[in-house]
Amino acid sequence: VSDIEPILNGNRLALARLLTQIENETAAGMAALNTLFPYTGRAHLIGVTGAPGTGKSSLVNRLAYFYRHPPTGDAPPLKGGEAAPEQAAPRKVAVVAVDPTSPFSGGAVLGDRIRMRDLSGDPGVFIRSMASRGSLGGLARATAGLVAAFDAAGFDTIIIETVGAGQAEVDIAKLAHTTLVLEAPGLGDDVQAIKAGILEIADILVINKADRPGVENTERALKNMLNLAHPGPRIFQEARGRYREWAAETPAPGAPELALWMPLIRRTVATEGEGIPELAAAIAQHRSFLEETGDLQKRERIRLQSELDLRIQDALVTRWQGNTHYDAYRNTLEQLVRREISPAQAVARLVN
Amino acid sequence: VSDIEPILNGNRLALARLLTQIENETAAGMAALNTLFPYTGRAHLIGVTGAPGTGKSSLVNRLAYFYRHPPTGDAPPLKGGEAAPEQAAPRKVAVVAVDPTSPFSGGAVLGDRIRMRDLSGDPGVFIRSMASRGSLGGLARATAGLVAAFDAAGFDTIIIETVGAGQAEVDIAKLAHTTLVLEAPGLGDDVQAIKAGILEIADILVINKADRPGVENTERALKNMLNLAHPGPRIFQEARGRYREWAAETPAPGAPELALWMPLIRRTVATEGEGIPELAAAIAQHRSFLEETGDLQKRERIRLQSELDLRIQDALVTRWQGNTHYDAYRNTLEQLVRREISPAQAVARLVN
Repeated sequence: VSDIEPILNGNRLALARLLTQIENETAAGMAALNTLFPYTGRAHLIGVTGAPGTGKSSLVNRLAYFYRHPPTGDAPPLKGGEAAPEQAAPRKVAVVAVDPTSPFSGGAVLGDRIRMRDLSGDPGVFIRSMASRGSLGGLARATAGLVAAFDAAGFDTIIIETVGAGQAEVDIAKLAHTTLVLEAPGLGDDVQAIKAGILEIADILVINKADRPGVENTERALKNMLNLAHPGPRIFQEARGRYREWAAETPAPGAPELALWMPLIRRTVATEGEGIPELAAAIAQHRSFLEETGDLQKRERIRLQSELDLRIQDALVTRWQGNTHYDAYRNTLEQLVRREISPAQAVARLVN
Repeated sequence: VSDIEPILNGNRLALARLLTQIENETAAGMAALNTLFPYTGRAHLIGVTGAPGTGKSSLVNRLAYFYRHPPTGDAPPLKGGEAAPEQAAPRKVAVVAVDPTSPFSGGAVLGDRIRMRDLSGDPGVFIRSMASRGSLGGLARATAGLVAAFDAAGFDTIIIETVGAGQAEVDIAKLAHTTLVLEAPGLGDDVQAIKAGILEIADILVINKADRPGVENTERALKNMLNLAHPGPRIFQEARGRYREWAAETPAPGAPELALWMPLIRRTVATEGEGIPELAAAIAQHRSFLEETGDLQKRERIRLQSELDLRIQDALVTRWQGNTHYDAYRNTLEQLVRREISPAQAVARLVN
């Protein structure tokens, strides 16, 4: 059993060391995560995604700064939809910036430096960037591990930021309680620019760079898309099919039904700090919704099931590799390359 | 054994039926793919990707039209870098349009209609759209199946088009011989707009909508990024690490080294057809490079290994589900949700 006391007590150096161990998947890191796991589940996890050029880093910066310096008096409510005494206290904020498309850590490091101007020296903020670990599975596992460590270390708000539009974003939506999708005016004017698939993971749509021309068009297009197409939190129902057959007559397999939340739309100019208090209020409103409807627990369950499934898959491949001669695999691959057997036939041969 | 004669003879209706069976993963579809597999490996696979708003569909349309109506005399060479007698003959072109972010088929159907204006009624063109099948693995498998069917059916050029920026694009780069990444001027002016990770999968960078202001800046930024960061076809070397341990002392595991290709940059205005012949020439140039360096065979090997690995993973999960009581899984999940055990401990319990 690892000594987790320093982590639970908020020792920053111990936390930094642990994060590195988690990223590198060392035995000590994994053991610490096992021990820390019962102390997790308290933080509010906020996912932030959007196409390149929408200004994610600036927005995350400003949001972190806002949580660190909450305005007195008219601050937006943190929980339960009404102003609470503790709202004036600054929250501890962690940022995990994930770039699944880049195998370089250079960009991530640059990102850190830019952030530091506003937030450096504040012990209540911890920013960690991660570039690709080679596989999407490894990246998702490492992200979940970092989030768990921050959660156990007492960070109230954990912002998970990713680049791009694809499977990684869906995975993040599964990890976060509240997902922000950023748009920006002028990022392409055809229908393609606003994809139903990306809208679908959004709890809050943020039109950043809202001082640019075209903001009205962007907002109108988003509203139209929402009114036409919003199907509820559909991604969380995907699992249903996957388990139906396996579970057979067991009642109610797969993901639980979630309440219907119509995504909010907010405008910001993150570089100027405009719209940040209103965005924070929208995030608080979504948090209240999750608590009141019981969706917070349901999302937690979906999140943990998703992580469990990913890890089972990895464990099965590792075990299979241990039981299979690499030469058998390679010989089968050679036959496949010579097109003597099909991919399906190759698998049938390698997996009994 | 399925009757594959009509497919090999180019019967369009039989092909359409087979594509549906492959998408639905029916037993007949899978059996047909096994039988057809030895007839594959002849087509040139071109991947086209880029952020929403870059004009992918228009470009793919124009490219397909160009291949169907090759100019006489000064046509770009098809193979081997020099003009061949058969170049004047139109090639059969198939398009597989994949949208991993959308669970709706609506967008895909709309896409088909828009395309049809230019290409409808031409028996040498076949366009097939696919929305998400629920899982990325299922989508990748279905895409590979459709491509194999088109290949066996004698289509010379198969264009695989995807939306977004993420793992799906990397998967497509693995599937295609030549990958086009589209950019457009004004799609975000900060460094984030041009990600090293996306550049990395590009064999040809296409600046579409090149009649827009900012095209010079976009081209300069792309050139700078290429000069600074281009690391060669790095994604194909990822597999190396994954197999090193397993293969142990077996020499040279993992992916083969590929020759260094500096991505070409071409400007187009797809809606007007501008730059399309030059783009086709660049594609032909890359094809020649692949043939001359032997990279075509190496890429084929990587592609098939990647498909094999994905299928092994799926087969292992299916087999494990067959051997594991759903109730055991669900009970473990409950303990995980109550945070009595960690994700790693849950997996250790479920996978011996």
